[in-house]
Amino acid sequence: MPLTFKNHKLSNGLRVIAECNDAAHTAAVGFFVKTGARDEDAPLMGVSHFLEHMMFKGTDRRSADDVNREFDEIGADYNAYTSHEQTVYYAQVLPEYLPRAVDLLGDILRPALRTDDFEMEKNVILEEIGMYDDRPQWRLQDTLLELYFPQHPLGFRVLGTNDTVKQLTAEQMRDYFSHRYSADNIVVSAAGKIDFDALVKDIEKLTSEWQPSGAQRRYDAPPAVDCERSLTDKKLSRHYMALMCPGPNAQDDRRYAAKVLADVLGDAEGSRIYWALVDPGEADEADLSFIPYDQAGGYMAYASCDPDKAAQVEAKLLATIDAFARDGDVADDEIERAKNKLATQVTLQSERPGGRMRDLGTRWQYLQAYATLEDEIERLMAVSGDDVRQLLVEFPFSPRTIVRLGPNGIAD
Amino acid sequence: MPLTFKNHKLSNGLRVIAECNDAAHTAAVGFFVKTGARDEDAPLMGVSHFLEHMMFKGTDRRSADDVNREFDEIGADYNAYTSHEQTVYYAQVLPEYLPRAVDLLGDILRPALRTDDFEMEKNVILEEIGMYDDRPQWRLQDTLLELYFPQHPLGFRVLGTNDTVKQLTAEQMRDYFSHRYSADNIVVSAAGKIDFDALVKDIEKLTSEWQPSGAQRRYDAPPAVDCERSLTDKKLSRHYMALMCPGPNAQDDRRYAAKVLADVLGDAEGSRIYWALVDPGEADEADLSFIPYDQAGGYMAYASCDPDKAAQVEAKLLATIDAFARDGDVADDEIERAKNKLATQVTLQSERPGGRMRDLGTRWQYLQAYATLEDEIERLMAVSGDDVRQLLVEFPFSPRTIVRLGPNGIAD
Repeated sequence: MPLTFKNHKLSNGLRVIAECNDAAHTAAVGFFVKTGARDEDAPLMGVSHFLEHMMFKGTDRRSADDVNREFDEIGADYNAYTSHEQTVYYAQVLPEYLPRAVDLLGDILRPALRTDDFEMEKNVILEEIGMYDDRPQWRLQDTLLELYFPQHPLGFRVLGTNDTVKQLTAEQMRDYFSHRYSADNIVVSAAGKIDFDALVKDIEKLTSEWQPSGAQRRYDAPPAVDCERSLTDKKLSRHYMALMCPGPNAQDDRRYAAKVLADVLGDAEGSRIYWALVDPGEADEADLSFIPYDQAGGYMAYASCDPDKAAQVEAKLLATIDAFARDGDVADDEIERAKNKLATQVTLQSERPGGRMRDLGTRWQYLQAYATLEDEIERLMAVSGDDVRQLLVEFPFSPRTIVRLGPNGIAD
Repeated sequence: MPLTFKNHKLSNGLRVIAECNDAAHTAAVGFFVKTGARDEDAPLMGVSHFLEHMMFKGTDRRSADDVNREFDEIGADYNAYTSHEQTVYYAQVLPEYLPRAVDLLGDILRPALRTDDFEMEKNVILEEIGMYDDRPQWRLQDTLLELYFPQHPLGFRVLGTNDTVKQLTAEQMRDYFSHRYSADNIVVSAAGKIDFDALVKDIEKLTSEWQPSGAQRRYDAPPAVDCERSLTDKKLSRHYMALMCPGPNAQDDRRYAAKVLADVLGDAEGSRIYWALVDPGEADEADLSFIPYDQAGGYMAYASCDPDKAAQVEAKLLATIDAFARDGDVADDEIERAKNKLATQVTLQSERPGGRMRDLGTRWQYLQAYATLEDEIERLMAVSGDDVRQLLVEFPFSPRTIVRLGPNGIAD
């Protein structure tokens, strides 16, 4: 399949990148805004996510109904998501509808932000936060990040809290918007069946009045320390626990080794942790993942189990992790299996233009560089047992933050 | 992209079908067993799902560790799932590993079913059932199906209950297995980069000792009646409700119109129900789906909301559904939007061989026929406003079963 990478920077600083594939049946396009919970001031916690909702509430040219109806008219699979590090608006469409999808996405990124819509949407956000208590995994993970990144916005809740969202004003949101949604803080990524020159021309016209703002991100982060917290909630019927500790960041060349390491140790369906805890039926679920952030990174482990087995499952999870770091006895066949699994996953994801669009855009945010699928697989396949052992020395799963949530109290 | 459909029946009754695509980067294969909760006797409820777990516990040629390790060696994205109507074992791999994936899947479908493994795995299943109380949506949906299909196995819980799983014996499972996992009750579906002749040869060798059993499915079902139930659980913080009523079945030509109708009325992100309930922030989520079964079918609606708004949300959901059936005022542009959305969805799903493999296998189970992606889209695009209006007369969302689950009691 002949793929070509294209890259163009508009005069206002907005970047357009694409991987064009004439054999594709669909086209995907995404506006990647480099802003998220980590770019918020504490009193504004949740503004990035709330703003994402507001983007669908209408523009000078379109009402909210128009936006929704027009996306539906072209049959778009469209959505948006907000993380700690980026806010992404995307659509996957049949190729003939790409120009209309781009026009819609570009238009909604200059929203009306009407005060009455803002007040109405606030209720939707508060409802979403209200679902928290029925989602033990959200509570666990948010508490873990709050503790792991104390006084730092990487520990903020993406949804915000009841208090911050209630107190947020439309004026504060508009200020945040003008600074963070500037032309120089956005990358448009596209993949699939695409006419790149036409795409650039469309975007140039659409964004002719967008200005750069010189928006920056703060990278100072507190050092990780050992820390634990136990939360008791008598309403729960299972016990949940999670752990976080330092790992390579999203720019670090060691990230490929970290992916392999996390797969060997913590793949949810076949790994040392799986065999120790899930296969014998001691835990419902247990895994360890590599979590790369912009200039920060970590590993996160998770398990859920019968509350009566909480202490035993935690001890075994920690023992499995510690033995791996201490012994470094990772075998070549474990490495090969992990690499084959990861190569299959990345290939499967790349079979759809939407998957490539997402990879391209996210990679550009972190590295300002393009890589073909083959490049990525080559770098993954080059990881050796020595690379993994070296990484265990450099990041020995310590210091660590542990959070527990279950019906029975457990002393810290 | 040149696609070719291939189809071969082995002498033992096992069917092999494939859609071959030389341009694909992966290959996908699945063993589709026509058995699930609806084929169980009441005391054995849960045996299909439990048996699915046992398939990964080893064979005469392989231990459980071997199975897991060998799938990992070839980097397979593999899994299995059990529904009311089928149990499917599948793998997606890089094309060079397809023969090994087929060998593994074929081998695990003749499992050792050792009694000690059975007793150990029983704990895993009971843990899975134990997670129920923290999953209000599972409880809601299972209760809905139990009421909608009273005394009928389409109302059984796929996981079974604590009681049925505890009392199940390995001998009962072996009997169920020999009858339901026969050669004539299984279809192998494959898609992607595949050498069909080699695939058939491999499967023929692998299944040479598999026998037909003449396994049948019972199709009698109780007539739907109006019925309601309210469950109170003080531990919940949100209110949940669901509704089920008759619709076309999986063989019915009206299923295309039913998909369009369900999208117009109940798409979770843009539909009459969405605009009535979710957009104004009254419900967290609300949708209506078309649920086709083998010779049975229905529509299912769902909403969750603040418990204080339970009565209001339910009234509005029912009013929206009833007005749609009564007025039949569906506009041409609503129909066009729904069709474009559904066409995009099916195209996106088809871009990955795994998606085609799943469509092919499921379609064969219901219809013993093949359709290209283009055929499917053509039939979808042929749906007219008159088709939808006619369907509303024939299936007017009545009689209906309603289930509520929340912290506050509501009288039935």
